[in-house]
Amino acid sequence: MSESGSRAAVLVRFQEPLEIREYPTPREVGPGEVLVRVDAAGICGTDVHLWLGQLKIPIPVILGHETVGRIEALGGGPMLDWRGAPLTEGDRVTWASSMVCGECYYCRLKRQPTRCVGRRAYGISYCDDDAPHLRAGYAERILLRAGTAIFRVPDAVSSESVVGSGCGLTTALHGLERMPVMLDDIVVVQGVGPVGMAAVAIAHRSGASKVIAIGGPAHRLEQALAFGATEVISINEENTVEARRQRVMDSTGGFGADLVIECVGHPTAVPEGVELCRDGGAYLVLGQYADAGNVSFNPHAITRKQLRLAGSWGFEPRHVDRALRLLEQPKYKQLFERQVTHRFPLDQANEALQTVRGLQSGKALILPGGRVER
Amino acid sequence: MSESGSRAAVLVRFQEPLEIREYPTPREVGPGEVLVRVDAAGICGTDVHLWLGQLKIPIPVILGHETVGRIEALGGGPMLDWRGAPLTEGDRVTWASSMVCGECYYCRLKRQPTRCVGRRAYGISYCDDDAPHLRAGYAERILLRAGTAIFRVPDAVSSESVVGSGCGLTTALHGLERMPVMLDDIVVVQGVGPVGMAAVAIAHRSGASKVIAIGGPAHRLEQALAFGATEVISINEENTVEARRQRVMDSTGGFGADLVIECVGHPTAVPEGVELCRDGGAYLVLGQYADAGNVSFNPHAITRKQLRLAGSWGFEPRHVDRALRLLEQPKYKQLFERQVTHRFPLDQANEALQTVRGLQSGKALILPGGRVER
Amino acid sequence: MSESGSRAAVLVRFQEPLEIREYPTPREVGPGEVLVRVDAAGICGTDVHLWLGQLKIPIPVILGHETVGRIEALGGGPMLDWRGAPLTEGDRVTWASSMVCGECYYCRLKRQPTRCVGRRAYGISYCDDDAPHLRAGYAERILLRAGTAIFRVPDAVSSESVVGSGCGLTTALHGLERMPVMLDDIVVVQGVGPVGMAAVAIAHRSGASKVIAIGGPAHRLEQALAFGATEVISINEENTVEARRQRVMDSTGGFGADLVIECVGHPTAVPEGVELCRDGGAYLVLGQYADAGNVSFNPHAITRKQLRLAGSWGFEPRHVDRALRLLEQPKYKQLFERQVTHRFPLDQANEALQTVRGLQSGKALILPGGRVER
Amino acid sequence: MSESGSRAAVLVRFQEPLEIREYPTPREVGPGEVLVRVDAAGICGTDVHLWLGQLKIPIPVILGHETVGRIEALGGGPMLDWRGAPLTEGDRVTWASSMVCGECYYCRLKRQPTRCVGRRAYGISYCDDDAPHLRAGYAERILLRAGTAIFRVPDAVSSESVVGSGCGLTTALHGLERMPVMLDDIVVVQGVGPVGMAAVAIAHRSGASKVIAIGGPAHRLEQALAFGATEVISINEENTVEARRQRVMDSTGGFGADLVIECVGHPTAVPEGVELCRDGGAYLVLGQYADAGNVSFNPHAITRKQLRLAGSWGFEPRHVDRALRLLEQPKYKQLFERQVTHRFPLDQANEALQTVRGLQSGKALILPGGRVER
Repeated sequence: MSESGSRAAVLVRFQEPLEIREYPTPREVGPGEVLVRVDAAGICGTDVHLWLGQLKIPIPVILGHETVGRIEALGGGPMLDWRGAPLTEGDRVTWASSMVCGECYYCRLKRQPTRCVGRRAYGISYCDDDAPHLRAGYAERILLRAGTAIFRVPDAVSSESVVGSGCGLTTALHGLERMPVMLDDIVVVQGVGPVGMAAVAIAHRSGASKVIAIGGPAHRLEQALAFGATEVISINEENTVEARRQRVMDSTGGFGADLVIECVGHPTAVPEGVELCRDGGAYLVLGQYADAGNVSFNPHAITRKQLRLAGSWGFEPRHVDRALRLLEQPKYKQLFERQVTHRFPLDQANEALQTVRGLQSGKALILPGGRVER
Repeated sequence: MSESGSRAAVLVRFQEPLEIREYPTPREVGPGEVLVRVDAAGICGTDVHLWLGQLKIPIPVILGHETVGRIEALGGGPMLDWRGAPLTEGDRVTWASSMVCGECYYCRLKRQPTRCVGRRAYGISYCDDDAPHLRAGYAERILLRAGTAIFRVPDAVSSESVVGSGCGLTTALHGLERMPVMLDDIVVVQGVGPVGMAAVAIAHRSGASKVIAIGGPAHRLEQALAFGATEVISINEENTVEARRQRVMDSTGGFGADLVIECVGHPTAVPEGVELCRDGGAYLVLGQYADAGNVSFNPHAITRKQLRLAGSWGFEPRHVDRALRLLEQPKYKQLFERQVTHRFPLDQANEALQTVRGLQSGKALILPGGRVER
Repeated sequence: MSESGSRAAVLVRFQEPLEIREYPTPREVGPGEVLVRVDAAGICGTDVHLWLGQLKIPIPVILGHETVGRIEALGGGPMLDWRGAPLTEGDRVTWASSMVCGECYYCRLKRQPTRCVGRRAYGISYCDDDAPHLRAGYAERILLRAGTAIFRVPDAVSSESVVGSGCGLTTALHGLERMPVMLDDIVVVQGVGPVGMAAVAIAHRSGASKVIAIGGPAHRLEQALAFGATEVISINEENTVEARRQRVMDSTGGFGADLVIECVGHPTAVPEGVELCRDGGAYLVLGQYADAGNVSFNPHAITRKQLRLAGSWGFEPRHVDRALRLLEQPKYKQLFERQVTHRFPLDQANEALQTVRGLQSGKALILPGGRVER
Repeated sequence: MSESGSRAAVLVRFQEPLEIREYPTPREVGPGEVLVRVDAAGICGTDVHLWLGQLKIPIPVILGHETVGRIEALGGGPMLDWRGAPLTEGDRVTWASSMVCGECYYCRLKRQPTRCVGRRAYGISYCDDDAPHLRAGYAERILLRAGTAIFRVPDAVSSESVVGSGCGLTTALHGLERMPVMLDDIVVVQGVGPVGMAAVAIAHRSGASKVIAIGGPAHRLEQALAFGATEVISINEENTVEARRQRVMDSTGGFGADLVIECVGHPTAVPEGVELCRDGGAYLVLGQYADAGNVSFNPHAITRKQLRLAGSWGFEPRHVDRALRLLEQPKYKQLFERQVTHRFPLDQANEALQTVRGLQSGKALILPGGRVER
């Protein structure tokens, strides 16, 4: 890594390989800004959606919204992190990927900051054409704007556990705050990707009497058991909607689950999930992040089964706070570290993205510096 | 009306004319049972769905689940109504159409009695082949089972207002208990049938800052204004989904409504309604009573807009209690009386059903005794 | 135990020793009634309040509302328990101590059955002067009324765990349903009696990040740690309100707990508990079962600290269902069994009561048959 | 009013007359600051508490936290108000009296900004010793800090209605957001001061089936009826706790109210209010703003009656937004204007304060410019 230049992997055209470009490293760091040397950036499933062009974003763009790094420079003297701890050069930090305006209808009147009309996310909404360019994680350095919710990573928390849990954990914490697991609930989690795995962990910790995880890869299902699932259903073995429904009914006295959490992302998961709820139950639609088109759906089920449904978008800084607290527990630190199955240098950002696209990996990381110390 | 026999209009085959049959009037009324001479029975939109064969019911069946009548005989001495008031012969009464078992998973453990596995409703779930046959409102008499939630109709409440509000009002009270209007909410009501009209009334009474009703017949939209709508949108004038959406956006600062209440019944209303909610808003799917098939739906909206949705099925006796209290207010008594636009003798039950099927009427009644005193 | 007569320990005058009396064993068991031979009856703290005359009850009365026994006779043929399982002679059973009328303002309109105006509890509200006398647990036999919520005790659940958890567990389940622990909450439990111990267990299972138990006897505090407390505060060591408050503040960053659960029963616990809540926090007043008089209290704290408070009275049958499910877990079966520290024959019911009064015991049991098989 | 100096009424010693002092009018208005010429400042009951020394504040202090005025100077060019409307010189404005830090435990983690540890309120927490001195309403001018939530007053809203509703309306809006009136609730409002009157209005608008207001001065009770009370109880006629309780029981079928709202401020109101709640009901403790000492209270009632209680402190800017929307309705504009019964020049600020202290007035205003145009 040179001092004067910082390399980044840039999405120039949807569905085409990322290009490595080099940008001047900012020489002046403004008041409240923080220049961070990236240690590790996670590849999120959303990055695949972005690469495929399924969400509206400006291109060219540098991807990467799950990041840990070390502070190289602090603009304008001493700063505090979001929790009030002092920040200095060399500190290991992570941050909430989104910033909100704090002034719009959603921020002010409706207290829904994740729907802020001016919300911008590192690695998603900053066009790479605009200086200072370095606004994302697939890069050697990132320049954080004043007002970013930065968190000093506690010593007990490894960088790999932070990126290994990624935005899946914070997204699940937010969603399950909006639609909480109540003690002794029977919970079904659809999907065992990063969001699903976090949902399993949260449901287990919240006192669910059963946590039934439905997913594909055998090693992921095995991990779900370690995260707290009491039962797993393989979509390879139970390869029809009806077969899976029957399995859930067999485990729930024929009634269905108190709470179903959708963490799949494919539209077809939603009508399937509705059928897995008991009457009067709840359905958290947590994974439909990309606009992947329509699905054939019978709304009669919502009325007849007297369901409650909720959606949840992104997360707020306080969910990063809670995620870090969870990772301070050795059990969860280790479980989330083990989510990381692939590591790539920045030059191989394409390979990282394709690995996640294949859905067979756990978490893949880009390590612009070649390795993560801790 | 003869003493020994009671006539009824029977649905023998779906989509074919009802037949008038005569059954022996029960001579013995068992303990807790009540024999009622029917004064008026409302035709509910659900009756049309039942007649079309869109819900699973046993046939032959006598229809009619919205009923007012006078007690002819009380089994086993003095009785109290659901509110604890004494009942005697000649009393004018109405009742909750459904009875629940009180013992199943939904009644006991999950407190969702409307989803009771043994729930049976007068006018819907009693096969006419089984004695004592008279278990519905399209008939001269009905024999109420012991345990029915009977309500003596207060003197201030007219019979026509009770049947004119019908199960639309109790259904809306239940639904809006599950997903309440909060003070100053902007509310959209999709549909101005009996459920929609009641939803308009409830939204208005709950302190909505705006109540925007969307519907068809001009006279119904005019009535919606009397019930408390602040604005109406005609589907004849705004005859595309996009045109209606634009109207709602124009009235809501471009954001959509805090709460949308679906009272249409057609599946296509649901994706349209989702688009009328503001981000972080709520959607009550109240009208999807019949299984009218699937609709093409994009679940991405639930996640991205961070919505809450709820369904609600039927109602409980306490909602009848609340409906009667509302009808004690002269304003609402009159408004709901005016819902009644057509009255038919029992012999013309088919005509009554076809009138409602045509969707152009307000409420149609069957008057087996030819008229309603009050 | 004779066949024809059943002995019982009767509270004849407040604050005087219980008397052993013998009643005729009912020879006829009416429809829906169940005659049970008592295996074990728990001494509840409320029994001490009753004995002291601190609650309004009719005397003479047989005490005992936490009971396990075996069915000797079933009135009127086969019966189902509350969960729908068949009941036969010899079955080991427990039951909800209270029956409600199902018809009053609280049962019907307000869905608060624990406040039913006609609620009657075995061991509390049945005057011993009235036949069939045997309506309580401190007796060789009890005759359960038709409609009692009876539960067959699963084989995996020991009788001592049922009575060892007693109504403390069901009371806590109800209270924490009304004011739930949310994931990652910091919880303080005031008191480590039966209700407090159950509250610790529930808070731990619900995902509290910290559970701080405050109480007296050292062995009880040790047990609280086994039940899931992360920290205990001894009122013997921290023997002032201020000292305890300081300890809680030290453990909560100086802010106080998200949720405080009062399980002490003495009025002074309430103003102390209010001070242990963080601003915007919640306080569950769960233990003020007896009217133990007034306390000096500053209501300014409720407004200024922007608190939420809740009370909770008794429990419903569904909480017995949940308690039994918890006791099916070997860990909790054992923990609650170990709560039982004293066992007495029926003749020594007085000693049992005095033991609990001394507050130094765990749970004391009366074993009318001399021993409990399992 | 001179250009160079601005006079203010200053609380120099508790319980002694305010002193008129003159401060230099700020010549430079910093970025985001706004210099406002005060048109009208309301005397709030809290001002009396502050004058009496019942809350901890720095003195000397200029009082006045309910204010309307006109912009004299805007620091640093064009600005938007809290709703996004442009602000220019001459605009009529009001503002949220408090500013929060946005960074503390309560602002960030617990979303309880009204309990912000760094919260400062104009007219309360700014020591008059510190430049620029003019931080309150009892003055000719006030200099608003950058970040103040300023609202341009709509043309349809008179200045007297804004100050006439004062912080009573915003306080009630906040409290009833935390503990909402549900449709058809029976509501009791204790107190008919500014907070109580606003609570009556909100309960009425939220669809309460009855609103029973309890209070003193006959003209205030009469106004309560205009605001929506369905019944009033005079503490002069019903001059014992028991007499008032009996009146409420008579109006509620003997059960008590679904929701009681305390807006009195005296500690004795709280135990009285608890007795006015039905079992399972709710109690909003909204008026205990000053630490007026302890009261004798029996916490057994919270447990036995299974109550929910809530406190609420101050308000947030969005409640000012909602208050202004309400005042745009001619009915409420007029009702709140009529609350203003006394108007004083700045020189008579003492008289204004003493008038409110006497509790016989409606709202008293200070008009530093001698009159209010609209």
